[in-house]
Amino acid sequence: MRRRKVKGADQKLLSYTDYVLRDDINELKGKWNEKFKNNNPIYVEFGTGRGKFITTLAKQNPDVNFIAFEIKEEVLIKGVEKADESKLNNILFAWADVNNVLDYFEEGELSRIYVNFCDPWPKKRWAKRRLTHSNFLNKYKLLLNKDGEVHFKTDNEKLFEFSLNEISSNDWVLKNISLNLAESDFENVTTEYEDKFMSYGMKIFRCEAKKR
Amino acid sequence: MRRRKVKGADQKLLSYTDYVLRDDINELKGKWNEKFKNNNPIYVEFGTGRGKFITTLAKQNPDVNFIAFEIKEEVLIKGVEKADESKLNNILFAWADVNNVLDYFEEGELSRIYVNFCDPWPKKRWAKRRLTHSNFLNKYKLLLNKDGEVHFKTDNEKLFEFSLNEISSNDWVLKNISLNLAESDFENVTTEYEDKFMSYGMKIFRCEAKKR
Repeated sequence: MRRRKVKGADQKLLSYTDYVLRDDINELKGKWNEKFKNNNPIYVEFGTGRGKFITTLAKQNPDVNFIAFEIKEEVLIKGVEKADESKLNNILFAWADVNNVLDYFEEGELSRIYVNFCDPWPKKRWAKRRLTHSNFLNKYKLLLNKDGEVHFKTDNEKLFEFSLNEISSNDWVLKNISLNLAESDFENVTTEYEDKFMSYGMKIFRCEAKKR
Repeated sequence: MRRRKVKGADQKLLSYTDYVLRDDINELKGKWNEKFKNNNPIYVEFGTGRGKFITTLAKQNPDVNFIAFEIKEEVLIKGVEKADESKLNNILFAWADVNNVLDYFEEGELSRIYVNFCDPWPKKRWAKRRLTHSNFLNKYKLLLNKDGEVHFKTDNEKLFEFSLNEISSNDWVLKNISLNLAESDFENVTTEYEDKFMSYGMKIFRCEAKKR
């Protein structure tokens, strides 16, 4: 997606002090449940975009804490506005870089990681930047608790193929693999991006990976 | 594929006494290496069809013993003829039902199982008939030695999706998953069926499963 800078988005974003974390995120490592003031499980989404997916989940699951990661302030603000409108109190937004995820969480602090429509980084030499590369999977494995899972969706066939191979060789159990989500009976919560691509009739691929 | 009975195919098939096994197959359980007169690894194909795939492999790999299973005599004869023309001495043809596979082999007697373009049995109530159903996978697991693998190809997306889920939940490690074999750099030996479908531009799916 081409990036369109929105004037003042960064200031606007930081004005939502109850929802948005930036430089202060590292201080929460190991203390997220204190921040949420409960012991509910924590689900994060890496690359939240405009936030439809995670704010929908947050509404549907009041007993789960959600953290939405997005580096682009001009789309993250849309998610924050959705949460604010619905007065959600079980979601936080991290304007932060997923590459540094080990700085943000303690081992076993997370119960689920969503990776939705991440950049496919199509060239081979970019493989390590893909959020399902084994280097990332190793980080996820550390951060997830023993029943923790990664849930992954993409419209990119090559990325999905790569991801299935990475996940399987990285010692996870794959489950609920779908090669065409529109034809599966899975109750799918969509992202904005996904709605657009499904409306074009494009296939969406999905899988879940459980720690062995 | 619609079945066309070929008159005399059964008699012709059984005349190839060096190549074709039928009622005598059960006697070979645990004694296949004696039959091949060597200790080379044994690779089998379930549903060999006209035999292009397995006879090509047998030519390329003289240090492997191959056994081709096919229940339809009118196609199996084509494979036998190919082997006879090339004077192959590392291949046998079993005119036998794969459902009874535990009667034919001892535990750990096989090194590899190929399942190529098996019947997708599309209705849910037929799932148990699919050659990648967990009931079959459990049999394969018994028959394969500790480094044994199943190599699976299909043109049927729904069957492939089903198979990935079955294999992964049945405690195998998936590897070399391809969602479009024509675009992968895998050195593919094709079947007759595959040649036809690739010529129509249809996608071929492939994966390997290793015992954990």
